[in-house]
Amino acid sequence: MTDLTEKTLRREEKFHGRIVSVHVDEVLLPNGHTACREVVEHNGGVAVLALDDDNNALLVTQYRYVFGKLMPEIPAGKLDAGEDPSAGALRELREETGAVPEEFVSLGAILPSPGCYSEVLHLFFARGLHFEEQALDPDEFLNVERVPFDELLRRCMAGEIEDAKTVTAVLKAKLQFGL
Amino acid sequence: MTDLTEKTLRREEKFHGRIVSVHVDEVLLPNGHTACREVVEHNGGVAVLALDDDNNALLVTQYRYVFGKLMPEIPAGKLDAGEDPSAGALRELREETGAVPEEFVSLGAILPSPGCYSEVLHLFFARGLHFEEQALDPDEFLNVERVPFDELLRRCMAGEIEDAKTVTAVLKAKLQFGL
Repeated sequence: MTDLTEKTLRREEKFHGRIVSVHVDEVLLPNGHTACREVVEHNGGVAVLALDDDNNALLVTQYRYVFGKLMPEIPAGKLDAGEDPSAGALRELREETGAVPEEFVSLGAILPSPGCYSEVLHLFFARGLHFEEQALDPDEFLNVERVPFDELLRRCMAGEIEDAKTVTAVLKAKLQFGL
Repeated sequence: MTDLTEKTLRREEKFHGRIVSVHVDEVLLPNGHTACREVVEHNGGVAVLALDDDNNALLVTQYRYVFGKLMPEIPAGKLDAGEDPSAGALRELREETGAVPEEFVSLGAILPSPGCYSEVLHLFFARGLHFEEQALDPDEFLNVERVPFDELLRRCMAGEIEDAKTVTAVLKAKLQFGL
């Protein structure tokens, strides 16, 4: 196998936002040519598939501005800088739904779009929920609903739910726990 | 349910690249406050889980500059402007692996990161392959290998493969076709 490593020659910072930053790098390819790589930096995220005692999943519906529509997704959010993924996932689950789980296990991480987007998304599975108060930001708007796991699986398989983290967590949980 | 729609008040273009563009919009929230939305525009992509007659999946390993490592993924690529997703997927499969399928069905689309990233990724499943010549770009470097589907599924479930499109396509195919 050829060494496929690309070596950074030069970097230009293009945009620095609150959620993403962009830089464009000139890189040296294996054949000695150079190429440009656009990189969108993202601090990483977490998401939790949480089931109540009746096997209903908690879904959070919010307006996704990028797509101009409401989207049902499992509870999720961005990691704070340096935050442990488990802690971040428990924080987001609690803030968005009030749920606090007894059972809490990793479903692994996914890379949503590794060609140019640096986000790493850590997925978790939670059961044995009790409920405390939601703690939404004043400018955060979402509706929480409970959907039977089988119905959620059907919606993921039918393409009615397209959010990658939700689909991956649901399918992994189905196969891993025989739900 | 409250109307959660966010209305665009103002847009600032921040970066225009070959693969992604970024704009930041000021939006009106449901409570009358304003907020900023960072949007990374991407033209969309396609990916194909293709199985040969011995139930081996075609995997493409390439250097992912963003993560600084080699990643095995199902054949995939960006859509050309206005390109039909099926046509784009067949094109990428042929270019990267030489494979041309007899059976070719949709596995639905996923949205890798709907909070700020506009990519829509169309997934397909292919079987009944015959092989013609690869047609890589001169600056495209990748290694094609064949991995038994069961082994690929194991690697996805174990978190050894983290690429979202690969994990989703493999798990959907497992459940949809009982592989």
